[in-house]
Amino acid sequence: MGSVIGFVSDFGLDDTWVGVCHAVIHETCPDAHVVDLAHHIPPYDTWQAAVTAAAAVYQLPAAIHLVVVDPGVGGGRRDLCLVSSEGVRLVGPDNGVLIPAAERSGGVAEAFALQPPPGRGVPSPTFHARDILAPAAAALACGAHPASIGVSVERSNLAPAPFTTARAEGGRLLAQILGVDRFGSIRTSITAEMVEEGGFDGHDLEIEMGHSRLASVPFARTFSDVPPGSLVALLDSSGWLTLAENTGSAFERFGVEPGAPVHVRVIE
Amino acid sequence: MGSVIGFVSDFGLDDTWVGVCHAVIHETCPDAHVVDLAHHIPPYDTWQAAVTAAAAVYQLPAAIHLVVVDPGVGGGRRDLCLVSSEGVRLVGPDNGVLIPAAERSGGVAEAFALQPPPGRGVPSPTFHARDILAPAAAALACGAHPASIGVSVERSNLAPAPFTTARAEGGRLLAQILGVDRFGSIRTSITAEMVEEGGFDGHDLEIEMGHSRLASVPFARTFSDVPPGSLVALLDSSGWLTLAENTGSAFERFGVEPGAPVHVRVIE
Amino acid sequence: MGSVIGFVSDFGLDDTWVGVCHAVIHETCPDAHVVDLAHHIPPYDTWQAAVTAAAAVYQLPAAIHLVVVDPGVGGGRRDLCLVSSEGVRLVGPDNGVLIPAAERSGGVAEAFALQPPPGRGVPSPTFHARDILAPAAAALACGAHPASIGVSVERSNLAPAPFTTARAEGGRLLAQILGVDRFGSIRTSITAEMVEEGGFDGHDLEIEMGHSRLASVPFARTFSDVPPGSLVALLDSSGWLTLAENTGSAFERFGVEPGAPVHVRVIE
Repeated sequence: MGSVIGFVSDFGLDDTWVGVCHAVIHETCPDAHVVDLAHHIPPYDTWQAAVTAAAAVYQLPAAIHLVVVDPGVGGGRRDLCLVSSEGVRLVGPDNGVLIPAAERSGGVAEAFALQPPPGRGVPSPTFHARDILAPAAAALACGAHPASIGVSVERSNLAPAPFTTARAEGGRLLAQILGVDRFGSIRTSITAEMVEEGGFDGHDLEIEMGHSRLASVPFARTFSDVPPGSLVALLDSSGWLTLAENTGSAFERFGVEPGAPVHVRVIE
Repeated sequence: MGSVIGFVSDFGLDDTWVGVCHAVIHETCPDAHVVDLAHHIPPYDTWQAAVTAAAAVYQLPAAIHLVVVDPGVGGGRRDLCLVSSEGVRLVGPDNGVLIPAAERSGGVAEAFALQPPPGRGVPSPTFHARDILAPAAAALACGAHPASIGVSVERSNLAPAPFTTARAEGGRLLAQILGVDRFGSIRTSITAEMVEEGGFDGHDLEIEMGHSRLASVPFARTFSDVPPGSLVALLDSSGWLTLAENTGSAFERFGVEPGAPVHVRVIE
Repeated sequence: MGSVIGFVSDFGLDDTWVGVCHAVIHETCPDAHVVDLAHHIPPYDTWQAAVTAAAAVYQLPAAIHLVVVDPGVGGGRRDLCLVSSEGVRLVGPDNGVLIPAAERSGGVAEAFALQPPPGRGVPSPTFHARDILAPAAAALACGAHPASIGVSVERSNLAPAPFTTARAEGGRLLAQILGVDRFGSIRTSITAEMVEEGGFDGHDLEIEMGHSRLASVPFARTFSDVPPGSLVALLDSSGWLTLAENTGSAFERFGVEPGAPVHVRVIE
């Protein structure tokens, strides 16, 4: 049985790009099962692509992840296949979009620079997704080893992640806003592991974010653990600490941007 | 051969949610064939989700229907599988979104409260779609009986539908606006059966709606039965009476909202 | 193995239409593999549908192409299957949307007026996509010959293409703006063949377009061949000459509309 390929891009759904990549994958590996994770990443937004890929890897560690946000397509940057320490395989350009996903899966264990697949002619210099990356993901889905489709490269030379992981300092967690979802929930870079180590369960949180300082937000399991219109902090389904408003939009209250710092302290 | 699963949600296509549910279904039942019906239901809009699910059941009665608009996720509300009198299987939260679809298929015959599937760990309290509902739809697609994945519950305890069916009174049909489609056509809750019983064929209609009273709208087969820019009433492909403008937008003329009353009378 | 079906429409993804067509295709030909190419064509926009279908055929010549932008649905216009001289099969309404795709594949070789498939009941007069066109594409995907699902018709009677091909005149190429993509790149009707014949390689171009006259735009391979923010002309992945701004939006600079004339001259 072919593997699942999770597909993230900034292609949108208004042109032929996403569907053409599906067709190429089907041609290369008919048993692959492509799932579209997100294609409305804003054009060139490697930050949001990296967040989305990391969310995908957390939920689908057995899948192959194809991530295409690629402003440098056809220029000097390499096409990569990364293998994480926990065995997740990631395919995309060498511009940092794959790194946070790999770090959530134990870090980069091996890196390969992909070579154009034989038998497909010269790759279009504006569409490596179709001509190099999608064929590579398909080959992996049908059992190819990364070393058979690329050349091993030094991990230390990879382009860095667009954002860094959160850290503890002076009794607080120093983190960043990763983004805002469709329901207005504000996702931070604080991971499930940090929440567990920090002993959040059963406590309220003090949250500083942009110009706001929230003295006491309950940490709970789900939105409806607080009344409609109230704020709640919770672990979202992608394993990140998230600030939400039950049946409302936390984003409309605070309007923070991705990348803004956020500081969280557990109130004992 | 696995069944078709029709999938409706308010997840949008900008996050990983829809694709992750696809992957979970594929893992549980590789032969299931998921078709995405609509994922841009406005957040928390159970009305529109119920309309869309009912349109889907009318067109795809042999499919399993997975409907996720779920503001109460992880709280007290139940996850359901309903079986209609005509045998349609519906999976979604107990907040009314499934009821109009069941009613278009003979009414609810059996109701089951779903239990978390074995072997998937503790369900995320914010993402029952991934951890309970999608696995349930997948199990059904591969032949499971609803009683094997849930516990029978009383039909009388189910949360009610967000809207009610139209009715005849004093020579008129009293109905509601269900919504407006991409082409600006205004869909009412008057069904194909009522249109047939009412003897609409070959007649004009008087339509009262919001602040407008349309003295005479032709009831016809299709948009181009009237000149471009003219109004026409017709049965849409989902079996509801719809007010449209040929190659234009009826909505831009009348601007009615879902839920507004609409009264229709056949002009003899 | 069933064929790939590329699917283009103006249905959007907010209603059940696209998914229902998927289900119908799956029912008719379970081995068909449908790839969604673009469903946000603006309502009734046969121009953009024809451009998208031609882009699709250039990239996926082995696929069956289903193209539904159909303001005249249910009226007099015919449902068609066209076969191009190079063997591409196209399914859609007789309103010109299929013609540019056929012309990029050697021209229309054969044309068939589709007949409603047996066993599906009376087609909905508002949804031939579901009841005639999708079943026809599915039948082709499972090996049916066009003559078995339609009646041969005269090629000379087909509705014309919404736009015409570019031509050389007085040392210039006279063409049209076909559209603008998500990245703000402006696509012209000048084809890869014309670019090759015109000897563009290694030269700059003079481009007149709307109120703008660009004295010297480099013709290059990819976006990053010029500095960020600079203009570049290149062959896009669909085989058309395109004006782009590296990591920016050419459209925001020039704001041209589809259909506007564009004149291109190679600077010797």
